[in-house]
Amino acid sequence: MRKIRLGVIGVGNMGRTHCKNIKEGKCPEIELVAIADNNAMRIQAMKDDGYENVTYFADAEEMMDSGLCDSVLVAVPHYDHAKYAIMAMEKGLHVMVEKPAGVYTKQVREMNAVAEKSDVVFGMMFNQRTNHVYRKAKELVSSGKYGNIRRVNWLITNWYRPQIYYDSGDWRATWSGEGGGVLLNQCPHQLDLLQWICGMPVKMHAFMQFGKWHDIEVEDDVTAYMEFENGATGCFITTTGDGLGTNRLEIQMDSAKLIVEKESISLWEFEVSEPEFSKTNKQPFGTIPTKQVEVETDGINERHSGVMNAFAGAILRGEALVAGGEEGINGLMISNAMHLSAWTNSTVTLPIDEELYYEELMKRVRASKRKTTVVNVVADTDGTY
Amino acid sequence: MRKIRLGVIGVGNMGRTHCKNIKEGKCPEIELVAIADNNAMRIQAMKDDGYENVTYFADAEEMMDSGLCDSVLVAVPHYDHAKYAIMAMEKGLHVMVEKPAGVYTKQVREMNAVAEKSDVVFGMMFNQRTNHVYRKAKELVSSGKYGNIRRVNWLITNWYRPQIYYDSGDWRATWSGEGGGVLLNQCPHQLDLLQWICGMPVKMHAFMQFGKWHDIEVEDDVTAYMEFENGATGCFITTTGDGLGTNRLEIQMDSAKLIVEKESISLWEFEVSEPEFSKTNKQPFGTIPTKQVEVETDGINERHSGVMNAFAGAILRGEALVAGGEEGINGLMISNAMHLSAWTNSTVTLPIDEELYYEELMKRVRASKRKTTVVNVVADTDGTY
Repeated sequence: MRKIRLGVIGVGNMGRTHCKNIKEGKCPEIELVAIADNNAMRIQAMKDDGYENVTYFADAEEMMDSGLCDSVLVAVPHYDHAKYAIMAMEKGLHVMVEKPAGVYTKQVREMNAVAEKSDVVFGMMFNQRTNHVYRKAKELVSSGKYGNIRRVNWLITNWYRPQIYYDSGDWRATWSGEGGGVLLNQCPHQLDLLQWICGMPVKMHAFMQFGKWHDIEVEDDVTAYMEFENGATGCFITTTGDGLGTNRLEIQMDSAKLIVEKESISLWEFEVSEPEFSKTNKQPFGTIPTKQVEVETDGINERHSGVMNAFAGAILRGEALVAGGEEGINGLMISNAMHLSAWTNSTVTLPIDEELYYEELMKRVRASKRKTTVVNVVADTDGTY
Repeated sequence: MRKIRLGVIGVGNMGRTHCKNIKEGKCPEIELVAIADNNAMRIQAMKDDGYENVTYFADAEEMMDSGLCDSVLVAVPHYDHAKYAIMAMEKGLHVMVEKPAGVYTKQVREMNAVAEKSDVVFGMMFNQRTNHVYRKAKELVSSGKYGNIRRVNWLITNWYRPQIYYDSGDWRATWSGEGGGVLLNQCPHQLDLLQWICGMPVKMHAFMQFGKWHDIEVEDDVTAYMEFENGATGCFITTTGDGLGTNRLEIQMDSAKLIVEKESISLWEFEVSEPEFSKTNKQPFGTIPTKQVEVETDGINERHSGVMNAFAGAILRGEALVAGGEEGINGLMISNAMHLSAWTNSTVTLPIDEELYYEELMKRVRASKRKTTVVNVVADTDGTY
């Protein structure tokens, strides 16, 4: 069997998870040939974990130039995603980028421009797109069968993190280290799914609290209102502070209502579309006949390894990616719009003023203070995305 | 048995419903002695319905002066609630006022001032407060057992109304006739319950669409963000346009999560409060041990007749009302704050600038156009509040 020869850049939590998947045989078309990390302790930890036939590098560019790999996975801190992706593309290597695509859209736009000129495969780690319930939701909404989307409500508050999570790295939850909080670290998947399923909003007004529940610089509580091109409205609410959160997506359409909650999808179909019913019905308190219908999904959720396997398939046989790299800018645009709205206390239109966003972000980066007390803990990422 | 002698002012949809309840024996301590309505057709409809031993008046003041009643129920269009309530109080009659308390808080403040100087019983028709699930929710939240409220999310979009509903009265959904849309007509109950259970918000930013789903002047779609004094945030979303809406209230507290949906209440208790857990836990991805606990309620929901019976009990024996009349201003203050925020496209603080609200409302009232095509239909209010 032909295999792609993968180099992993960055073996923090996520990089390690990907290596482990390959080691456990979940990615039969991927050979892990090299690992690059500028932190010698993390390199040692990988060696201790028994990764054999792997060449280690302290420098990512050296790894790229070594000729060992034909593809790389970028799993470094957010600010450096675009830098390494661009470097790899320019060297003719295929690239998979961990989410988020970057911290600010200006940077990601550069990455996309380089990708457009190159002919490498460029993918984004939106592993939630492999989840059967979201795939089915997209299929139902996109089918056109139920008319327009009218209202979207996503309560995604089950990202609970205790203080020690933030204390486990000096870069965590700082403007200079991560460039944002729950929106940049935890929510990129949902922001991507939102635009994947419902399309891009055109207007945004967000309310944010910074360090509300934790001793951190960045946002840990967000309520965002949005409008779509067809006039539909939406609300996106997230936090890392709720002791027992909720993940509930509700989409109201002209002739159906759809709810995704707890890995299951519920659908109600209307006998008549709302606009039609409103026009023709003669009873002031008339209601639309509706019925709940069983939604069958394939039950499959291949997660990270599914994204990596599709990446290998794209390189080896030109198959489809789970998410094209250039799509990473969409969720980030929503995230940036939320920040810009909250910072300027105003409603913003999308695409946002990217220069203004960058200036506002840099103000915060300059004032940012890395934590001096960092607790040395090994995080168990089981149960995270 | 001693009974109160009630006169009903206004026998539109709601007035008729109250009369029917009394006729059906649901209010054993209330005698319906008089009905006032300036519309002869509505008076005739009541006579046709066989209300006996009832004296009819075309003028409410004449009814009040007749000496027949010791108490009145005000069920006229919203703008006139305060006027008739004040008139009755000044004549020493006990008053029950249909929701909303009025259209603008300035007016309701006058009503409350008169009430304070008088010694009549003054109640507000917040019949949703009799619902066992909301009573239980208030009890749980107020107990203090679960610490502070942190987040409130009420998706109350099951107020569907087709166009003919709005076409059934020339006053409906006009600034001059109702002074608002879904917030003034459908939501007063939820806005009252919100403040009853969670307390008053101190800050509000609302996004509203006017005549979005219907051919009407006023709002039929609202998304409102709010903040409470302790920093808790909330979101209130409502519409009369969703074909199949939702009524789901979620409250996140320091050590519990509570959901009221479909007449049932779900509660999860945390073993440790979130602030305590965050401080003491040593695992970066640690989660708080929680368990769902059975919530027992008495299952009782006495609705309108429950409110009326409590009113009679208050008059006859000094018993507690379901909702004191002076509390009506709270939900209306929230509603007015939402309108003012949307009209001025700005965040408003509560209590609002009542003069500014009044000016902005009057601008719209002056430009308001009563509908010229009204469909003559008899509404079946079964299933409405």
